Amino acid sequence: MNFASDNVHGVHPKVLQALSDCNEGAMGSYGADPVTVRAEAAYRELLDAPDAVVRFVATGTAANALVCAQLSPSFGRIYCHESAHIHRDECSAPEFYSHGAKLVPLSGAQGKFGPAALAEAIRFGKAGSLNDGRNAMVSITNATEWGTCYGPSEVAALATVAHEAGLPLHMDGARFANAVAGLGSDPAALTWQAGVDVLCFGGTKNGALAAEAVIFFDPARADGFDYRRKQAGQVYSKQRYLAAQMLALVEDGLWLDLARHANAAATRLGQGIEQAGGSLVVPVEANEVFARLPSDAHERARAHGAVYHLWQDELPAPGEPVTVRLVTSWATREDEVTDLLDLLRGA
Amino acid sequence: MNFASDNVHGVHPKVLQALSDCNEGAMGSYGADPVTVRAEAAYRELLDAPDAVVRFVATGTAANALVCAQLSPSFGRIYCHESAHIHRDECSAPEFYSHGAKLVPLSGAQGKFGPAALAEAIRFGKAGSLNDGRNAMVSITNATEWGTCYGPSEVAALATVAHEAGLPLHMDGARFANAVAGLGSDPAALTWQAGVDVLCFGGTKNGALAAEAVIFFDPARADGFDYRRKQAGQVYSKQRYLAAQMLALVEDGLWLDLARHANAAATRLGQGIEQAGGSLVVPVEANEVFARLPSDAHERARAHGAVYHLWQDELPAPGEPVTVRLVTSWATREDEVTDLLDLLRGA
Amino acid sequence: MNFASDNVHGVHPKVLQALSDCNEGAMGSYGADPVTVRAEAAYRELLDAPDAVVRFVATGTAANALVCAQLSPSFGRIYCHESAHIHRDECSAPEFYSHGAKLVPLSGAQGKFGPAALAEAIRFGKAGSLNDGRNAMVSITNATEWGTCYGPSEVAALATVAHEAGLPLHMDGARFANAVAGLGSDPAALTWQAGVDVLCFGGTKNGALAAEAVIFFDPARADGFDYRRKQAGQVYSKQRYLAAQMLALVEDGLWLDLARHANAAATRLGQGIEQAGGSLVVPVEANEVFARLPSDAHERARAHGAVYHLWQDELPAPGEPVTVRLVTSWATREDEVTDLLDLLRGA
Amino acid sequence: MNFASDNVHGVHPKVLQALSDCNEGAMGSYGADPVTVRAEAAYRELLDAPDAVVRFVATGTAANALVCAQLSPSFGRIYCHESAHIHRDECSAPEFYSHGAKLVPLSGAQGKFGPAALAEAIRFGKAGSLNDGRNAMVSITNATEWGTCYGPSEVAALATVAHEAGLPLHMDGARFANAVAGLGSDPAALTWQAGVDVLCFGGTKNGALAAEAVIFFDPARADGFDYRRKQAGQVYSKQRYLAAQMLALVEDGLWLDLARHANAAATRLGQGIEQAGGSLVVPVEANEVFARLPSDAHERARAHGAVYHLWQDELPAPGEPVTVRLVTSWATREDEVTDLLDLLRGA
Repeated sequence: MNFASDNVHGVHPKVLQALSDCNEGAMGSYGADPVTVRAEAAYRELLDAPDAVVRFVATGTAANALVCAQLSPSFGRIYCHESAHIHRDECSAPEFYSHGAKLVPLSGAQGKFGPAALAEAIRFGKAGSLNDGRNAMVSITNATEWGTCYGPSEVAALATVAHEAGLPLHMDGARFANAVAGLGSDPAALTWQAGVDVLCFGGTKNGALAAEAVIFFDPARADGFDYRRKQAGQVYSKQRYLAAQMLALVEDGLWLDLARHANAAATRLGQGIEQAGGSLVVPVEANEVFARLPSDAHERARAHGAVYHLWQDELPAPGEPVTVRLVTSWATREDEVTDLLDLLRGA
Repeated sequence: MNFASDNVHGVHPKVLQALSDCNEGAMGSYGADPVTVRAEAAYRELLDAPDAVVRFVATGTAANALVCAQLSPSFGRIYCHESAHIHRDECSAPEFYSHGAKLVPLSGAQGKFGPAALAEAIRFGKAGSLNDGRNAMVSITNATEWGTCYGPSEVAALATVAHEAGLPLHMDGARFANAVAGLGSDPAALTWQAGVDVLCFGGTKNGALAAEAVIFFDPARADGFDYRRKQAGQVYSKQRYLAAQMLALVEDGLWLDLARHANAAATRLGQGIEQAGGSLVVPVEANEVFARLPSDAHERARAHGAVYHLWQDELPAPGEPVTVRLVTSWATREDEVTDLLDLLRGA
Repeated sequence: MNFASDNVHGVHPKVLQALSDCNEGAMGSYGADPVTVRAEAAYRELLDAPDAVVRFVATGTAANALVCAQLSPSFGRIYCHESAHIHRDECSAPEFYSHGAKLVPLSGAQGKFGPAALAEAIRFGKAGSLNDGRNAMVSITNATEWGTCYGPSEVAALATVAHEAGLPLHMDGARFANAVAGLGSDPAALTWQAGVDVLCFGGTKNGALAAEAVIFFDPARADGFDYRRKQAGQVYSKQRYLAAQMLALVEDGLWLDLARHANAAATRLGQGIEQAGGSLVVPVEANEVFARLPSDAHERARAHGAVYHLWQDELPAPGEPVTVRLVTSWATREDEVTDLLDLLRGA
Repeated sequence: MNFASDNVHGVHPKVLQALSDCNEGAMGSYGADPVTVRAEAAYRELLDAPDAVVRFVATGTAANALVCAQLSPSFGRIYCHESAHIHRDECSAPEFYSHGAKLVPLSGAQGKFGPAALAEAIRFGKAGSLNDGRNAMVSITNATEWGTCYGPSEVAALATVAHEAGLPLHMDGARFANAVAGLGSDPAALTWQAGVDVLCFGGTKNGALAAEAVIFFDPARADGFDYRRKQAGQVYSKQRYLAAQMLALVEDGLWLDLARHANAAATRLGQGIEQAGGSLVVPVEANEVFARLPSDAHERARAHGAVYHLWQDELPAPGEPVTVRLVTSWATREDEVTDLLDLLRGA
């Protein structure tokens, strides 16, 4: 019963199998291998983006930070939600890779900000003096850090504001599969067709070992990116194994099956919690549940080995309800959800 | 017959197996898992260094560049051989990670520099003005870029010079296993007992998928390294799979068996080339052969599909001998060496 | 009637004279000159800090950003007020120089934060994971961006919290003279005796051409700073002219006379505004007045050429009072204050 | 008799006067003042470049390093002479500001490299893998570190090679005035008409207090440079004083008069040394003399207080000739040259 994160779980068997399948014989290093060629093509096809530049890296922090460095100068302003992973959870990797860009946090309910808040922030940055830095890019997370999703029209509204100011729109898709599954959307409709310029398409949280794709829908934006990735120490010499993971995920729609599984578990968990006297802090739209749990339910669950995070790592006052984050994944089993709900209900 | 590099070959079956073996169940992220604990301990034991701090990253460039950033300020001078990977082959990753440190290349035969050359360079740096930057660290590669090895007494002589100037000694051991195997040395004797302060212990070139260990023999030198690695996007969330690779390599001495295999193939190749009318540019001491091949032998080999690099990527004059680099690996087969030698001999 | 900033005014005649006075003959470059030696000694004496390391740079942004780089690693957390110049007004120079440190803004009334808020923030940073970065330093501005001052006991309370967590305390003293004058305090009592570890002592806003002193009370903290300053392009070859400015300011207490003059003008301005029907947003404690002005008073003043900033650059609603910032300086004349007050009163 | 450097001398009286002349009254900060406007225009006119972007900074290191950051990504290759100031004497400021660019030193007689050497280096960089970084820019120094000059046709030949590879050409003109004076050339002919894209036009070594101009002949190349300069802490709030220095230099041709004076002194010194039994290492073409002096002449001069650098700071063997660098400046007096020559001749 581990709901701490989607990254506490292992690698999907088909992904592991793909590593074995490409293991035979010598291949060119640093991406000059047929597996990488095939995997890059597969993502272009999946996203219906024949001209896109697709590159693989091992971690989400690397993917996001490299994109920030690619799209923002050192004196750039990067607009994101105040809960954004790039702002809160990456040890200032974007600042490091970009050499000083300023993350400008925007607030907004349920982990999302809207076009009005963005327009206002951009306007301020534009009117500002040299002291304020220069507007550089906009970043949204989908699914968000609160497990909610921006739908295509919401993305498009933000893209319109960004583009009117000449700024590219980045989507941190560490849980992109969960967003697509949750929205019942189409990957192209949710990204470039809505105005996303660069997408980080997560693999690790969705069954890969350690793999993410960075996708530049406009190849001109990828100029020099291969050097940047190399200089960052993010290019595998045996690149085929990075590509093989991502390839395994898109073959036969595995990525979406896994995300649907995770999302379904979260939905069931959310409903069960409400029935058990808890309440949801935000709606469950992907694979995360943010809930208020009665104190005794929480204590019972913990005592029986359920693992999850108290939100904001705050110690709750005795007897008071606690706010928790529960994350499901491709590997979450039915019985784990059942067991947790039983515990919460005191059954 | 691919002798282009040791990284064109795949992953050793035992390493792949180790990935499967640790796949079951949920584990803590970012290194808080039992596999990582076990693997770090295994390297401390292997190196007879119970206090050492051991950390894993995926690429050699990341390992080296992070160490440079850890040991040198932005205004530091880093002494290395002019052929060093950190100076020539990492897209200035050390400069990037350290934010500007100056790589000061030293010359010396067979990919090695000696204590006198080092002392002279350090003396110049010390006498210099602010304009010259400040002496920061010394880096050697073992086995070297020329496939030669520094023995323990050679390392100790350099360490003495470095330490007298207050500088730490880093060993880039992307092919450390090949050096240990070639020298018949002991890992501890070749490193901390000879004065090495930080070792990058390569896994990828020796049968891993993508894994290197960074080992700080003095834990005080590792202060803050975990943050640095995180900020660099070099921490896997599913860290167990990085650790499992490195653990598989040290269990039952696999790492040394594989390196001996590679070295033996190189030795046989070198001897065969001499018998076939070629000549060695440097002695074969690890898993690389640098040789002058008669023009017709080279053309025959290439025509029949042998893959290897012309050294310095220079186009040879027609009819003239060519200088080539041939790299063997854990996966190089007896018959591949035989076939290449047959081709070179015109048999 | 220019109250836009203290940097719109020129250079005090004694400072200009000092440039001429040191102009004769050849002197050593890069600080190896007697003027620099004398000026550094003068600041050590002024601050009663015989062991302090004193260095001069030309701009406040350089002074602050170099100190941030000196005291924080790239993965550090720098605590400051949300209105701090290093956070809001330096084009992310601290992030650039430190290569990615995270400025963590604290809120608090009147441009100041207190020990409880600081302790809470530090506690969070300490409890956090690698994702949050590592606690590195605390920075306060005195006089603050709101023209208020931290007194010695307030500084000491913050220093205690910082030091208990092992963090150094930096004071951005771009308007340090105004704080000392406003508080009637002693430079030593307000800095190292209260626990300040590094002080940026401003000259430019107080009558210099372009000069600031960076003062490390513990010489160990200055290790390598000369290289850092050189690498930043912040070392004058003709260093005597930088030193001469700062020397002129401390001779015969000029710095304090100028600050008292500026503060007195601000005090008179503040009182006059209240009499004229305006109100003060914060008390006037140094050389800045933040006030709400009746709409018609503001329009009259502007129409007659008074220059000052609307606060937050917000366009006021028609007829509504406006919030303005008025800055006085060593060069503000009595009649300018009188004229502005007359205009505001409609006299 | 100080021939150590051109920066040991003071500020020309007309430059000092210019500081006083612009001291009256309030002016806009950060460059929004009429002196800056006038000075920028004066340099555009001097260089017959009406569209050029002109910006002022205080030090040559800042000027060069900011340009490197402007023209090269972190993974760029910057081609320069092995004696170049940016490579040898700026504490790796270009690497720091560009965040890792690789300075690739070219050799060549008399401090200059030719188009063939440049073409060969660029070809290598272009053919290289990601490991080598990407060709980014070419930098030449004029007058060179050896006091020689590139004439317009030499510059044009290098510019042609650079531009054919798509690379901009930067000229480090810390001693640009001396080059113009030495060549009897025209500033436009020696720069943009010969293909220079960005010029650092030195003021400090030629009588300014601390001032250099950075000139982008194509305004598109200056995009974002103002932010970069601000983030670097290189923007004076009282910018008028930086501009006033540079303005004073160009008014009435002062810059050229001063350079001619310095060059004439060097020429006379060089001729005198040859007559005194010494020999020139390179021809005297600007304001530096590199000479081999008989041991006794050198000892006599030193004993009587002559100040200059032994070249490469090497201690000469007793009785052997020594190689020295002698630098003249706008402030070098006739009698100083006479006195030194008398000493060398043993008169």
